[in-house]
Amino acid sequence: MLKTAIEYNEMLSVLGRRLQPNAIRKLTLLLGSKEVISLAAGAPSFETFPIEEIAEISARVIRERGRFALQYGPTRGQSALVEAVADILHTRGIDGCSTSQIVMTTGSQQGLDLIARVILDPGDVALVELPSYIGGIIALHNAQAELVGVRQDDDGIIIGDLREKINRARAEGRRVKCLYTIPNFQNPSGVTLAAQRRNELLDIADEHDLLIIEDDAYFDLHFTDEASRMVPLAALRPDRVVYLGTFSKVLAPGLRTAWLRAPEEIAAKVEIAKEGADLSSSVLDQAIVIESIREGLIERRLPELRKFYRVRCAAMLDALERFAPAGSRWTKPTGGFFILMELAGTDATTMLMDAIESGVAYVPGQPFFVDGTGANTLRLAYSKESTEAIADGVERMCRVFKSAKAQANA
Amino acid sequence: MLKTAIEYNEMLSVLGRRLQPNAIRKLTLLLGSKEVISLAAGAPSFETFPIEEIAEISARVIRERGRFALQYGPTRGQSALVEAVADILHTRGIDGCSTSQIVMTTGSQQGLDLIARVILDPGDVALVELPSYIGGIIALHNAQAELVGVRQDDDGIIIGDLREKINRARAEGRRVKCLYTIPNFQNPSGVTLAAQRRNELLDIADEHDLLIIEDDAYFDLHFTDEASRMVPLAALRPDRVVYLGTFSKVLAPGLRTAWLRAPEEIAAKVEIAKEGADLSSSVLDQAIVIESIREGLIERRLPELRKFYRVRCAAMLDALERFAPAGSRWTKPTGGFFILMELAGTDATTMLMDAIESGVAYVPGQPFFVDGTGANTLRLAYSKESTEAIADGVERMCRVFKSAKAQANA
Repeated sequence: MLKTAIEYNEMLSVLGRRLQPNAIRKLTLLLGSKEVISLAAGAPSFETFPIEEIAEISARVIRERGRFALQYGPTRGQSALVEAVADILHTRGIDGCSTSQIVMTTGSQQGLDLIARVILDPGDVALVELPSYIGGIIALHNAQAELVGVRQDDDGIIIGDLREKINRARAEGRRVKCLYTIPNFQNPSGVTLAAQRRNELLDIADEHDLLIIEDDAYFDLHFTDEASRMVPLAALRPDRVVYLGTFSKVLAPGLRTAWLRAPEEIAAKVEIAKEGADLSSSVLDQAIVIESIREGLIERRLPELRKFYRVRCAAMLDALERFAPAGSRWTKPTGGFFILMELAGTDATTMLMDAIESGVAYVPGQPFFVDGTGANTLRLAYSKESTEAIADGVERMCRVFKSAKAQANA
Repeated sequence: MLKTAIEYNEMLSVLGRRLQPNAIRKLTLLLGSKEVISLAAGAPSFETFPIEEIAEISARVIRERGRFALQYGPTRGQSALVEAVADILHTRGIDGCSTSQIVMTTGSQQGLDLIARVILDPGDVALVELPSYIGGIIALHNAQAELVGVRQDDDGIIIGDLREKINRARAEGRRVKCLYTIPNFQNPSGVTLAAQRRNELLDIADEHDLLIIEDDAYFDLHFTDEASRMVPLAALRPDRVVYLGTFSKVLAPGLRTAWLRAPEEIAAKVEIAKEGADLSSSVLDQAIVIESIREGLIERRLPELRKFYRVRCAAMLDALERFAPAGSRWTKPTGGFFILMELAGTDATTMLMDAIESGVAYVPGQPFFVDGTGANTLRLAYSKESTEAIADGVERMCRVFKSAKAQANA
């Protein structure tokens, strides 16, 4: 069922480009009144929230430290949390992070917005993956960057295409400022940037003096040994990489708590931007996260979280294998929440209303592609529904695709 | 003692313009190691936080509605909270607010940032009071507005000066887009815009097609009957006013929960900007505020809150009466947290280090004045310390001012 805001926002922002207000109202009613299996959710399942533990921690930190937890806090974040994040970064191979490199943010979305505001001048080129996360695209767009897409294959960014896009932009006299990438289990494609390409990408960044914005929201949610050994770009080239991490996927997204790590002088600018943007993120949320880290609540739940999503991913891959129309293909994630499906010549946006009528929702892929391609793609999330619902939803959805194809061929 | 971030930030951002890094480090050590009475705090006293009640509510909303309270939420805010805010607006005389006019924000600071980003183009003139809230100045500045100050007296904005500043800017071919005002118990001056001037100001806004940004953070904290009857500008001219309110001063600022009410088409743009800025504010904070409203926790504590600050205000006014150097003057607030003091020819920034050495801190007034005046002013907050500490702090401070004056005259 469609209940969380993020999927709803994403669906409406996608549909809003195509549908009239009346149709949106109709859709809203439909989603509210029907039992719709959601393969659209960009959110973690509430089944993964440690509700009782967070309730207990919340009451405790308010009682014991309420005069701080309920008061204004430092713009960079509570110092105990900033220090804990430095430790987390160390475990990811990003060594020697001083607290002056870290700013806590209201979800990674705020990190994206602030870094875009801090580094971009109007007209600067920001490179993004094809496809890329809509929230990242919006943040870069709001800072008036010119967005240029770089193609991906099953190993992430295609290095040759990256070179070509940079050279073309520079030949046109434009300044290429940064590359936004989600190297692990990307949203929306689920693909992971191969180890060798990470080095190649960083060499190109050195060559052209690019800043890398590395969004590693799904880092901890790997399904394989190989995926668990992926080295962040920030570990390889800390001076060139702004690294974003979050507690949203491993604890709870309603506690809007994430972080940005950047070279010191960039972090200082981000802090100033954040002071103007909201003074600080929720102090109570931060206090809860600090205590959750201290008690090991996050760390000890990771194995079961990985299993939770790995099982659902397998169920979706299995259902696609069984039901997908001929000629379609899809990615095989080794972590995260998402699979990108590519249909043979069918427009995924056009099909969405029929799919919802049939009781299943997904997010059409086109808005994730800044070059306007991807009309035949869709994002499928296995993060929310049960394995049974996933299989059922994929079957219903594929039936819609097949019948559309049959009609088109008739 | 200086413990909260907001006063610390404000002091450092003020001093940062004058002091070298070494001096800032020295000041930081001083503030951390000494018993300093803080008349600098821009924050409510933690003594006003209903800690036990919030602890209980927090645990309960997580246990009962954790699958929502810990999940992503709608960008505009939880619908129950948006509806509750519409009711609050109604009690303030701002009638007929539909939920499509309201967006919940991470403190009023985010409301200021978002509205500035939405309505301003680079170079637009934004009118601000002399002096005005630094966070508002920063938000307008970050949106690349040209800031023009309008003088105030004890009745708030001087209407003649407002006309003059508009005419001058227009004569220079500049577009005057908005006026940012804090009409009740202003930060930093403590003055309130007189009732008649509210109408005159709105007539001018109509005449010149200005949008008014009305920041009413201290609305509920009035000390007199007259002050309790002040009508918001948004109640008089809803189509021309963006109205900001907050739960920071009447519940707890660490629960970063505030709202923005705007004409529907502006609110829609703010929502889009907020989606890119952080997807949503803390969902848990909002859930706690909803429950606090439902249980009457906020409403029933207002009388004691008003008394809390009224008593402290009286203590400060009394101490100023007794100890202030000859030739100085100060405002007489009828609500809120602040008094603005004006010294006869003494620079308040220069005196600050001496004052801190003597065990008392305040915020120099100059940075609140966008025209660079105000060097002889300072902001005094009575929101934090006990009545005894306030009297003691004012005495210490005035001793420093007097001895500086004596030295200058020697």
